[in-house]
Amino acid sequence: MTMSELIVNGGLPVGSLQKACIELWRSAGYKIVVEERSFFPTIDDPELDLILLRPQEIPRYVAEGKLDFGITGYDCIVECECENRVTEMAELIFSKVSRKPTRWVLAVPVDSPIQVSTDLEGKSIDTEFVTMTRRWLDRQGIQADVRFSWGATEVKPGRFCDAIVEATETGGSLKRNGLRVVAEVLRSTPRFIANPVAFADPRKREKMEDIVLMLKGVLDAEGKVFLEMNVAEKNLPAVLELLPALQVPTISSLVRAEGYAVKSIVDETVVRTIIPKLKRAGARDIVESPITKLIP
Amino acid sequence: MTMSELIVNGGLPVGSLQKACIELWRSAGYKIVVEERSFFPTIDDPELDLILLRPQEIPRYVAEGKLDFGITGYDCIVECECENRVTEMAELIFSKVSRKPTRWVLAVPVDSPIQVSTDLEGKSIDTEFVTMTRRWLDRQGIQADVRFSWGATEVKPGRFCDAIVEATETGGSLKRNGLRVVAEVLRSTPRFIANPVAFADPRKREKMEDIVLMLKGVLDAEGKVFLEMNVAEKNLPAVLELLPALQVPTISSLVRAEGYAVKSIVDETVVRTIIPKLKRAGARDIVESPITKLIP
Amino acid sequence: MTMSELIVNGGLPVGSLQKACIELWRSAGYKIVVEERSFFPTIDDPELDLILLRPQEIPRYVAEGKLDFGITGYDCIVECECENRVTEMAELIFSKVSRKPTRWVLAVPVDSPIQVSTDLEGKSIDTEFVTMTRRWLDRQGIQADVRFSWGATEVKPGRFCDAIVEATETGGSLKRNGLRVVAEVLRSTPRFIANPVAFADPRKREKMEDIVLMLKGVLDAEGKVFLEMNVAEKNLPAVLELLPALQVPTISSLVRAEGYAVKSIVDETVVRTIIPKLKRAGARDIVESPITKLIP
Amino acid sequence: MTMSELIVNGGLPVGSLQKACIELWRSAGYKIVVEERSFFPTIDDPELDLILLRPQEIPRYVAEGKLDFGITGYDCIVECECENRVTEMAELIFSKVSRKPTRWVLAVPVDSPIQVSTDLEGKSIDTEFVTMTRRWLDRQGIQADVRFSWGATEVKPGRFCDAIVEATETGGSLKRNGLRVVAEVLRSTPRFIANPVAFADPRKREKMEDIVLMLKGVLDAEGKVFLEMNVAEKNLPAVLELLPALQVPTISSLVRAEGYAVKSIVDETVVRTIIPKLKRAGARDIVESPITKLIP
Amino acid sequence: MTMSELIVNGGLPVGSLQKACIELWRSAGYKIVVEERSFFPTIDDPELDLILLRPQEIPRYVAEGKLDFGITGYDCIVECECENRVTEMAELIFSKVSRKPTRWVLAVPVDSPIQVSTDLEGKSIDTEFVTMTRRWLDRQGIQADVRFSWGATEVKPGRFCDAIVEATETGGSLKRNGLRVVAEVLRSTPRFIANPVAFADPRKREKMEDIVLMLKGVLDAEGKVFLEMNVAEKNLPAVLELLPALQVPTISSLVRAEGYAVKSIVDETVVRTIIPKLKRAGARDIVESPITKLIP
Amino acid sequence: MTMSELIVNGGLPVGSLQKACIELWRSAGYKIVVEERSFFPTIDDPELDLILLRPQEIPRYVAEGKLDFGITGYDCIVECECENRVTEMAELIFSKVSRKPTRWVLAVPVDSPIQVSTDLEGKSIDTEFVTMTRRWLDRQGIQADVRFSWGATEVKPGRFCDAIVEATETGGSLKRNGLRVVAEVLRSTPRFIANPVAFADPRKREKMEDIVLMLKGVLDAEGKVFLEMNVAEKNLPAVLELLPALQVPTISSLVRAEGYAVKSIVDETVVRTIIPKLKRAGARDIVESPITKLIP
Repeated sequence: MTMSELIVNGGLPVGSLQKACIELWRSAGYKIVVEERSFFPTIDDPELDLILLRPQEIPRYVAEGKLDFGITGYDCIVECECENRVTEMAELIFSKVSRKPTRWVLAVPVDSPIQVSTDLEGKSIDTEFVTMTRRWLDRQGIQADVRFSWGATEVKPGRFCDAIVEATETGGSLKRNGLRVVAEVLRSTPRFIANPVAFADPRKREKMEDIVLMLKGVLDAEGKVFLEMNVAEKNLPAVLELLPALQVPTISSLVRAEGYAVKSIVDETVVRTIIPKLKRAGARDIVESPITKLIP
Repeated sequence: MTMSELIVNGGLPVGSLQKACIELWRSAGYKIVVEERSFFPTIDDPELDLILLRPQEIPRYVAEGKLDFGITGYDCIVECECENRVTEMAELIFSKVSRKPTRWVLAVPVDSPIQVSTDLEGKSIDTEFVTMTRRWLDRQGIQADVRFSWGATEVKPGRFCDAIVEATETGGSLKRNGLRVVAEVLRSTPRFIANPVAFADPRKREKMEDIVLMLKGVLDAEGKVFLEMNVAEKNLPAVLELLPALQVPTISSLVRAEGYAVKSIVDETVVRTIIPKLKRAGARDIVESPITKLIP
Repeated sequence: MTMSELIVNGGLPVGSLQKACIELWRSAGYKIVVEERSFFPTIDDPELDLILLRPQEIPRYVAEGKLDFGITGYDCIVECECENRVTEMAELIFSKVSRKPTRWVLAVPVDSPIQVSTDLEGKSIDTEFVTMTRRWLDRQGIQADVRFSWGATEVKPGRFCDAIVEATETGGSLKRNGLRVVAEVLRSTPRFIANPVAFADPRKREKMEDIVLMLKGVLDAEGKVFLEMNVAEKNLPAVLELLPALQVPTISSLVRAEGYAVKSIVDETVVRTIIPKLKRAGARDIVESPITKLIP
Repeated sequence: MTMSELIVNGGLPVGSLQKACIELWRSAGYKIVVEERSFFPTIDDPELDLILLRPQEIPRYVAEGKLDFGITGYDCIVECECENRVTEMAELIFSKVSRKPTRWVLAVPVDSPIQVSTDLEGKSIDTEFVTMTRRWLDRQGIQADVRFSWGATEVKPGRFCDAIVEATETGGSLKRNGLRVVAEVLRSTPRFIANPVAFADPRKREKMEDIVLMLKGVLDAEGKVFLEMNVAEKNLPAVLELLPALQVPTISSLVRAEGYAVKSIVDETVVRTIIPKLKRAGARDIVESPITKLIP
Repeated sequence: MTMSELIVNGGLPVGSLQKACIELWRSAGYKIVVEERSFFPTIDDPELDLILLRPQEIPRYVAEGKLDFGITGYDCIVECECENRVTEMAELIFSKVSRKPTRWVLAVPVDSPIQVSTDLEGKSIDTEFVTMTRRWLDRQGIQADVRFSWGATEVKPGRFCDAIVEATETGGSLKRNGLRVVAEVLRSTPRFIANPVAFADPRKREKMEDIVLMLKGVLDAEGKVFLEMNVAEKNLPAVLELLPALQVPTISSLVRAEGYAVKSIVDETVVRTIIPKLKRAGARDIVESPITKLIP
Repeated sequence: MTMSELIVNGGLPVGSLQKACIELWRSAGYKIVVEERSFFPTIDDPELDLILLRPQEIPRYVAEGKLDFGITGYDCIVECECENRVTEMAELIFSKVSRKPTRWVLAVPVDSPIQVSTDLEGKSIDTEFVTMTRRWLDRQGIQADVRFSWGATEVKPGRFCDAIVEATETGGSLKRNGLRVVAEVLRSTPRFIANPVAFADPRKREKMEDIVLMLKGVLDAEGKVFLEMNVAEKNLPAVLELLPALQVPTISSLVRAEGYAVKSIVDETVVRTIIPKLKRAGARDIVESPITKLIP
């Protein structure tokens, strides 16, 4: 009896996350091609069937089983009320876009009388994420008129509505439009979610776990580098103490030379502070070189 | 007693129509500047206060009087159910984008059993224009499940819904996604709409009529050219018969030469057929030159 | 009895002349579109069937009747030995590319012993236009070894051959490669050629003549402008004498003002010398404005 | 006896004015080409010999007779103390760059104690135009330490000097650097200047006057358009009253139609206010068309 | 007695292969610069004298000894009938362009009666590679009229000839032009070829072998990566079994830690399947890093 | 008692060196951002306060203590006469721009009578670096008229002055302007300079030394690569002899295999000559991989 062919359906987000997401799959070792104006990426894995969809719609389709897995934002999962209907397999911090999570904030004109969230009682709020906003108000027992905004939401407070709930990264757009943040409604990061039935199927689960392992392997390697150096025996303890605990350093004895070759993975942001210290501690021939994947 | 200062508020559409719309105002003689990431165009007319908004939201704000006038699509007016709540002052065919109206069509997979609109009974329809779609179904007495689509709608039929209602210009995107048109739901062109109260105010009305006059003057001149030629008296009737009835040609007698100078406005698309005929009819020194505005 | 449908086949050149040629048709009033990687332009005239071909091959296909007309260089007509097998309807000087004809020259290294064409006896000559070169040598009774060059011909003299025959516009490429011109082999300009049988068919001939009229109307207008001015009666003879004889100026009497309005077509290159003289001769309110077609 | 050949030397400014200046000569009818990295423009007038130079150095070279004429800013003339050593033939307002003159202002940090120019006594001032600044201080009897700045001058006040004298167009750069304007030192526009000896030579003078006539003809046409319309006899006075006094309108009687053809030059910025009025006054078939040169 | 100076002449292909070829030399460690419009690359090796030539002409010049070596396609070698007149030193698969060889196919219109190659008897065939096509027909005893095509060959079948022989990579251009492949005429890849006399000269041969070693070292490294990991002694056999046999993995004992550091070269395309298996087999701290050259 | 907060002020050069300099800091591990039109880079090190300034002004501000350190050219240090007023901490050869130092040369027209520097007596010299030029003339006891040039200096010799002192890299601009080099005035490279008082402060000095260590670590790694290979015991001496003495190679014994893994840092320019020799000496599986920092 032959085994049935495995096909796993996945949804990837179009829009702001799309480029970084496709790039991530590519770095993970997949040859994935999205032809212009097509929503069906081709991938060199016959067991995968991918589609590009708006992130707002991915949680619903994963929950309904129309997709086995999806990559989307936590905000979209909340907006679709799907937190308990999908299995979250991983949080994916796409540092190439921004390491910071997306913040959804409630904002008003700088000179608005609204100071705290309870001041919103009876007010009008425009937002692209109506359900998420209503759920947040409900939790606080506030009654307000939440209306769907098609976009350019940050222009409206004061003239077209009382407040808005809007995503922000740096706050720059809010400031340019003369708005003040009253409260944070939600922090969101991208997630890898699975349909619970697909997750319970051992073959689909292993397939999805392998994908997650590779995607995370790429993300974990971002901003990390190899640091190699030669260290005389007497200096080894001091050098090892300086190396961060990310990973156990690889130490090999040298042939035809005193001492050891020490090799470690270091976060790029600490390299500039650690190298001067390593040198003072006796490390020699310190070399930094790039890495592309890291699986702990 | 001094007259109160006149301020007229207007909403221009962001998105696909934005660039052509701003360009149109510029050709009409306004110095209008939209700084990057700003929604408030600056214009060299102190009586105008402009804002950029999603076209889907402009009809509602014009109807509510938050804007005195707006430029938006007829489809958006229908989606907002504002046909009777705004005053339509002009239809603006932006030929620089496309002379063809936008068509909203109901589409299904090529191999779908749905052949006519009545086959939609009980089916699921995804669309960005939920209200417009429901009104169209209601007029035909059809009950269907209309759901809001966040975008990439043409990918969904078959796998995520039964049918979609989607805007199309050339039909290319439908064909690429394997879809077939079942019915046309609406044809839409850009409109200049006014709030009825503002329209009833003589000063605001004159202001808006002057704007419409200039905008249409530019659009009417697009694709038209001047044609000038010298014609001997005996050839004049034959030449005049060939000239199109767009405008009465300007005929002046020539000094120190026999005959007349004839000047006319001609549609650019007929120039190549009319010129050989004019030459055969005896016109000489035929010159084509450009025009930029035409007010009949 | 209905008249049979007229279809006229035409070949346009791909390559260096392509863009200017398509642009010329557009200026002449045709909506012509060449989609990327397609060789079949679409045109808004159902009687025309166009194809893009290498200019080297167009004369042969016109001569054989596979095309009714073609636009190609005179050099290609000579290379195909088709001078007597096609009907030349017009010379088209594409000034947007260069008003200068293409010159095919025989060139040798600056330090070559070859000084005049008779020195070529028994030498090797590389060229892309083998037939044209052989015909030129034959006319002078010179025997030489002419070989086909696939390109980069100007690199070869000295090391890979004795001389080359190559097209040049400014001579810059020859100079950069250390070459010296020994003789001019041919001067070439673009031509509109017709198949003799098609030219003998009255309907095809009128169709082709109308096209030529429009194409030449555009080329004749290039570099020409309108010049209008007001002139008092006493100054009229002096002013008229200054105006070039390109076209009889249009003179109209003015109403409510002394004198005449004079309007003329002037070559752009003489405007800067003529305007100061016109002003001294008494012309006032001299205005220059653009023209786009000129049919004498 | 043959007449000696006429050669007139001219200096054009490199830098911010260069592109607009070359463009102006081109519009005036000169074929002028500046090859990349060359400072010697080629021009199709054998009597002209042009060189590109820094505008700061042009006044000195014109005054010394190394150049017959030059185009440079008034600020540079002042910096070189050449006001009385060169003959100013024209002011050239390059509207394509900006119609506004360059303003040189004295600026200090917003929180500086310096409020008026007399507060500068004994302070340090950094500027690229040291002489101009010293002359301005001298006229007011102020003693201050003026130092040459190599650039990025607006970054220095407060930390590296007390005040600066810097050119500004919109004031944006001053504001971004937290500076406040204390006084205006000079307003500058581009000028066409001649060496007095060259200006006294009749042939050189006529040559330079013709150039100035053409350059000004282009600048005067910028932002102006033709307006043509048909007017019935009874409406003629009302229509003529509306037309601006820039130029006497050209009125011709119409043949085979009542009334007159009226044609006038109008400033583009008033078109949008004048057209509605003309229409109300009875003008019909109003057409706007472009002009490229205007010599009064 | 001093040794004579060594100079080796080489021809590199202009055109589609040029950029990848120059890039390859650069990756191999040569500083090679091709100035715009020059055919003589400068290289930081005084023993090399390079020239850019059409690939179609390189085999002939290598065979004739005008070049010591060349890089060109196998198709060009066949077209020049030089298979036995040059020494092939290496096949170079430029994966940056495409790993697939160029295929020369015989194609006809989809509705042509020609089904197999013997149907070509007496037909007309257009191609840019006339000799190669004739040799292929001869081998099959087919008589056909093979004509040189200057380009745009895929447009001609049906209207201008019966069949074509044309290069294709993806078949996309054939499909767009409504053509069907009847037979494959040749598969071609780039080759490094040497003149037999030069190859017999020990010094030239060593020079050329060193170049080939470096070029192949770059190509062999493309698509390969380092994979390093830590492995406990008990897991070593399982881990080693998973590693591909490309290269013997480097295993070093660790100091101050149990187990081994294992390092191997792995093909990028298998990384995503091998990493999950390695992790399951007990490998820890798996790190992928890039390589740039690989010499076995 | 808390330690006072450390702030170190630094000046980076705007202009030709700016991009490479910012890039260098980034490679050294700093997140440094220069917003458009801002002169204040933001950096993720709260102890650093950076400003962008013209390199000509940096030495003076470092000498005066307005900056603790600066990066500028040696030519600027000389022009400011600051050699003894600043502490040079490092020479930074930015190989990404050019490894060659900037040369300031004295140049004259090719046909000038000036042949040696003493011929300059009494002549006029234009230059942007007036002080440096005068100091050079003084050292040779030459009297000449040195004048400040605002730019385009290479156009002036002959017509506007007798000679110039100008920076050159390749000499191309001099040649294009028909100039000949008479003498070299100065060779200049970028330097990291410190204010002597800041350098004497132990905390500031350590901070600056750490920065220099990282900047040099990046520059030292440019153009260097890792070379790894497996070597059998008997071949080890021959292989080691071939490796350059840049760094002691790291040699580890292999487990489960005969021989050693050898790893070394090699200059990229010698790789192509060393690899063939290593292979002949018995090295196997030679792999080149990139490095990004190298601290000896």
